[in-house]
Amino acid sequence: MPKLSDRGKAMPASPIRKLVPYAEEARSKGRKVYHLNIGQPDIKTPDIALNAIRNLDKTVLEYSHSAGYESYRRKLASTYQKIGLGIDYSDIIITTGGSEAILFTLMSCLEPGDEVIIPEPFYANYSGFAVAAGVDIIPVTSRIEDDFALPPIHKFEELISSKTKAIIICNPNNPTGYLYSDEELKQLRNIVKKHDLFLMSDEVYREFCYDGNSHTSVLELEGIDQNTVMFDSVSKRFSACGVRVGAIVTKNKEIISTALKFAQARLSPPGLGQIVGEAALDTPANYFEEVNKEYRERRNYLVDGLNKIEGVFCPKPKGAFYTTVKLPVDDAEKFAQWILTDFEYENQTVMVAPAAGFYATPGLGTNEVRIAYVLKKDDLIKAIDCLERALEVYPGRKLD
Amino acid sequence: MPKLSDRGKAMPASPIRKLVPYAEEARSKGRKVYHLNIGQPDIKTPDIALNAIRNLDKTVLEYSHSAGYESYRRKLASTYQKIGLGIDYSDIIITTGGSEAILFTLMSCLEPGDEVIIPEPFYANYSGFAVAAGVDIIPVTSRIEDDFALPPIHKFEELISSKTKAIIICNPNNPTGYLYSDEELKQLRNIVKKHDLFLMSDEVYREFCYDGNSHTSVLELEGIDQNTVMFDSVSKRFSACGVRVGAIVTKNKEIISTALKFAQARLSPPGLGQIVGEAALDTPANYFEEVNKEYRERRNYLVDGLNKIEGVFCPKPKGAFYTTVKLPVDDAEKFAQWILTDFEYENQTVMVAPAAGFYATPGLGTNEVRIAYVLKKDDLIKAIDCLERALEVYPGRKLD
Repeated sequence: MPKLSDRGKAMPASPIRKLVPYAEEARSKGRKVYHLNIGQPDIKTPDIALNAIRNLDKTVLEYSHSAGYESYRRKLASTYQKIGLGIDYSDIIITTGGSEAILFTLMSCLEPGDEVIIPEPFYANYSGFAVAAGVDIIPVTSRIEDDFALPPIHKFEELISSKTKAIIICNPNNPTGYLYSDEELKQLRNIVKKHDLFLMSDEVYREFCYDGNSHTSVLELEGIDQNTVMFDSVSKRFSACGVRVGAIVTKNKEIISTALKFAQARLSPPGLGQIVGEAALDTPANYFEEVNKEYRERRNYLVDGLNKIEGVFCPKPKGAFYTTVKLPVDDAEKFAQWILTDFEYENQTVMVAPAAGFYATPGLGTNEVRIAYVLKKDDLIKAIDCLERALEVYPGRKLD
Repeated sequence: MPKLSDRGKAMPASPIRKLVPYAEEARSKGRKVYHLNIGQPDIKTPDIALNAIRNLDKTVLEYSHSAGYESYRRKLASTYQKIGLGIDYSDIIITTGGSEAILFTLMSCLEPGDEVIIPEPFYANYSGFAVAAGVDIIPVTSRIEDDFALPPIHKFEELISSKTKAIIICNPNNPTGYLYSDEELKQLRNIVKKHDLFLMSDEVYREFCYDGNSHTSVLELEGIDQNTVMFDSVSKRFSACGVRVGAIVTKNKEIISTALKFAQARLSPPGLGQIVGEAALDTPANYFEEVNKEYRERRNYLVDGLNKIEGVFCPKPKGAFYTTVKLPVDDAEKFAQWILTDFEYENQTVMVAPAAGFYATPGLGTNEVRIAYVLKKDDLIKAIDCLERALEVYPGRKLD
């Protein structure tokens, strides 16, 4: 049998993959498993978007333009214009989810062997895209004690080499929920300008900002519009993760024309998903108000509930719907397995994502987990209750 | 401004990209342009598939499993079983179009710098996937005089080096319409077994075989089930190119588990497209009979019509809906541009794909074009008529 590639071996498995069989085992014992481990919201997709599909009048499901339906790109551009981003439809390539936006941009901008600096913990799939693109991620550590704020800018500076081509941020952040301040973004602006780097920003959680905080896009940063690329997606915004529609947004025409060649090779992004995405842009404002209110309440329950548990520390995230939490355990991965296999409270248990999979530096995040607050309040309360009781009896309990 | 990657520069543009503005120019002059250049069929998507979308009862468009909905994989496996392929649902990963199936398989099996041998002319986007995966395509030339049959197997043998990891075929072939015989497949079987190579086969046109010929999958070849991978797609089969749903199908579990890691990084294939693909599997047999009858008639009109034109040679394809044709011209690329910019017959003209873009060897195919017979007969007749008159007056006319 022919040997497979080392690249394939280097490809990371999903951080929760090992836990999936244990969750199935728990369910097979009749236990209810609360999934705090995934970013699949239970929020309904807006009716206006679902109806666009239900009322489909096409008789041939044909290829769209490789950059996406022009009508969709134009409408998306006008929504960006409404929030102050001077984006023309020609600055947009519609992609197959935010995932493809990241992959095409890395391949267009970075050579195999080049480096990209990313604050850790970071969205675990960035590692996969980096392997696929043959580029190396250089992590710069953000700390739970600082609420996962941007690491001091001199820490970035120390990591920049001749191979460094880009910095990637996720804002608001998955897995920490941190929302970068204008001051932090200005520091990033200065460093990419000084070293002539790309600044790529994953802004798929843009609408999810709480406590009166507002989001600033890297596309708003002055004087670096040839350096900045924004990744976008309809997945979380419209609770339509399965349609796989995202976007590359940049004023840099060379990136657009290069990424378009990658887009042409795969012909077109999903047509039905684009119809959903385009219709969803007419979602009434009160949908977001209600959704944001819902997430804010869930976050408050979660953060308050977790911080009441002895030995737990949970920063209060200002955006997205994740939080990375410190637990009083010897090893969060062992705990995440144990709670599925050896624990139950009133026939219920919880699945969490061990945070080590979100750090590139070995040994970090070993007593942290990522929690997604994508469950209804009632379920969230029960899940927190489970977690509290589990931590009391976990054999590897370890207080600082 | 930071410099983009050489990889981005190496990415090929679509072979017809240069012609698109000329087609737009022709249309802006009020001319009707017959598109013989693209593989977008005008055949209707089966109602059963469209209705599955119109009757959608989901309220959240959620992620599917990274390998695709299990119900879809199981149903797809059973359709493969019906045509004699011993495929289990666990041998399938649903991908975002056939494109992603090819990319994930190349990345899973080949190291950057490895080589894959492909008979030329070949589907132009293979070059794009090769650049993205960092692998080199080594072409082995099939000739129009032989109806684009498989090149003699010793020609493959001569090209095999320590870097060679795979052979890719497209069967029935895009852009030639050639259908490989069982004898040719046996030769490929022997060579991949002898040299321990992967044999990857793009079989997305499987249902389109004419004149009583039937299709043999590489998955049916004996004794090499760990070497073979089949790429599939719903695009052409169900005239649903825009849904972007394909598949990797292989008995090699190591390829499945490795490709799954690439699939997990991008979360899931398009959900709505999978619903279309799953429903389409219940398309009644007479749909395919009618579609095949339609394509066969179109092919007959096209091949007969073209071969009546002085200096034109068109092999009679046994499958798919393409043919690669020799024209009496100095340069098919110049001709393809001229016919859009400087020619019209009764206010009509034709767009064809210059074949040079389908060859990796420079200088080949310069007097050939690819024609897709995806137009209604009436339009096809008018398009052939246009082509005939254009060839009569083209200034670069050149008979052998």
